[in-house]
Amino acid sequence: MREFELIEQLRRKLPASKPGVTLGIGDDAALLRAPSGTPLAVCTDTLNEGVHFLPDHPPAELGHKSLAVNLSDLAAMGASPRWALLNLTLPAADESWLEAFAAGFLSLAERYGLALVGGDTTRGPRSITVTLMGEVPEDQALRRDGAAAGDLIVVSGTPGLARLALQERRAGRPVSAAAYDALHCPPARLELGLALRGWASACIDLSDGLLPDLSHLARASGLGAKLALDALPVASDFSTLEAQTRWELQLQGGDDYELCFTLTPERRGELPELSQRLRVPLTVIGEMTDAPGICLLDAAQNEFLPSGGWSHFAEGES
Amino acid sequence: MREFELIEQLRRKLPASKPGVTLGIGDDAALLRAPSGTPLAVCTDTLNEGVHFLPDHPPAELGHKSLAVNLSDLAAMGASPRWALLNLTLPAADESWLEAFAAGFLSLAERYGLALVGGDTTRGPRSITVTLMGEVPEDQALRRDGAAAGDLIVVSGTPGLARLALQERRAGRPVSAAAYDALHCPPARLELGLALRGWASACIDLSDGLLPDLSHLARASGLGAKLALDALPVASDFSTLEAQTRWELQLQGGDDYELCFTLTPERRGELPELSQRLRVPLTVIGEMTDAPGICLLDAAQNEFLPSGGWSHFAEGES
Repeated sequence: MREFELIEQLRRKLPASKPGVTLGIGDDAALLRAPSGTPLAVCTDTLNEGVHFLPDHPPAELGHKSLAVNLSDLAAMGASPRWALLNLTLPAADESWLEAFAAGFLSLAERYGLALVGGDTTRGPRSITVTLMGEVPEDQALRRDGAAAGDLIVVSGTPGLARLALQERRAGRPVSAAAYDALHCPPARLELGLALRGWASACIDLSDGLLPDLSHLARASGLGAKLALDALPVASDFSTLEAQTRWELQLQGGDDYELCFTLTPERRGELPELSQRLRVPLTVIGEMTDAPGICLLDAAQNEFLPSGGWSHFAEGES
Repeated sequence: MREFELIEQLRRKLPASKPGVTLGIGDDAALLRAPSGTPLAVCTDTLNEGVHFLPDHPPAELGHKSLAVNLSDLAAMGASPRWALLNLTLPAADESWLEAFAAGFLSLAERYGLALVGGDTTRGPRSITVTLMGEVPEDQALRRDGAAAGDLIVVSGTPGLARLALQERRAGRPVSAAAYDALHCPPARLELGLALRGWASACIDLSDGLLPDLSHLARASGLGAKLALDALPVASDFSTLEAQTRWELQLQGGDDYELCFTLTPERRGELPELSQRLRVPLTVIGEMTDAPGICLLDAAQNEFLPSGGWSHFAEGES
């Protein structure tokens, strides 16, 4: 594959100029004009074939997903996306695959006014690294360490749905459109992230799974948390599952790219309006506690210990 | 491998705070304070095992190299490095490999005051993506498109040496220390890049090879070039080679990470002092021409056509 050709190809699909881009694709480095006084939020994620996506992941949806998982990180900081870099490693140049991948990537980029300003194309086992730069006023950034004891824990969407879709696909069973999208074409909760600026006390995006990610937030805030298992949002795809199987999916599914955030109880009344305005399900699932660790309670207030034990959850795995 | 542990491990090795870093490793995104009014220079490169480095590349030197090839891009823009992201894909967690890799990476980062502010660690075939952000005043950035007909073409170091070392290693023959370093531990010509700000008319870093990279610069400037083959810098490792074999190494070796730049002939006299001050060999190898294409002349002024023909060189391959 010719690196030059792919980059040229992408450049031709892009608008000629973008705000804040002095020099885009085509030199040794891009030159960007960051806004003065506003911090830059920077994040990056790598997706590898066979680990983060199946070899038959449709390329347009993979283009979307590789950008969405990074937009999710910016959303979790309350940042607006500005610029993207795309590093693509492919075993061979497959024009139709590339065309579809680029279409999925660029269409999501376009929706958020994101400019592709550089990257690299190399030969090797299929792997995608996306790096994003965005902006967020320093005093409004949604950090992990801002939660207080007594703050409510809220989650967007339906954690566990992506993992359910993966399990069903592996077993050769059909899934609902919602579950299919959760796995192949996850959301990018940017509007939600912006709405939470200066409103939520802490926020994290769900990539490892609700329980390990909430553990990160709790530890960063020097707190613990109490979760009500029967409050976890449920999709119709979950209806045939035993409670315990469903809880484990919801708690440790991973690959959700939903936001989990905390807010003072006084703001609970404003959640329904926010959820309706953004058309994003928002569910209160528990509260932050002074006691460290995450306590999981069923409807009868009995504590539930997930399989694999605590250390598995407490640390999180990649 | 636990992603969390590796990132924590790297964080512990780093200075607690760095200028311009509001929030480093450990949240969904890093928060950085870019200097107001100065453009951000951003570049990224991926290195894959078996394609860009051999499986037995010593890990400390691979850590150095993966950063150096990116610093080379910033150097070619005349930018000062500020912040780095490291995406590391490994088949398994090998503590001693990681330790050595991190030492090589961080020691070069430290030398240039570069802060590691984020990244990602994933499982998969070994692959390294580094993304750098730096700064350069807009009117002093070294772009590829600034050369004028009659400008001299200058190259740093000894292009072809890294490729020679690779060939010799594959053949099981020993190489000089200089050739070994060129392959395993390439330079990062940052001081040279800074010195060329507002002085050179155009600049590019040599990654694909002298001829394809010079072609990029010439095309970006709407020009051609004339190269004197007997002016190309020679290393002692080249002494046993036939002229034609040597030229092909020097012209299309690749992986050099030297700078190739152009300057008005009036500045030729200042080159020796610059070379001496920076302790970097600088060699005038030709001049830019109005006629398009690259013309290669031997000592008798006969044109040399490299094997593989012109299109191979004119476009460059990755």
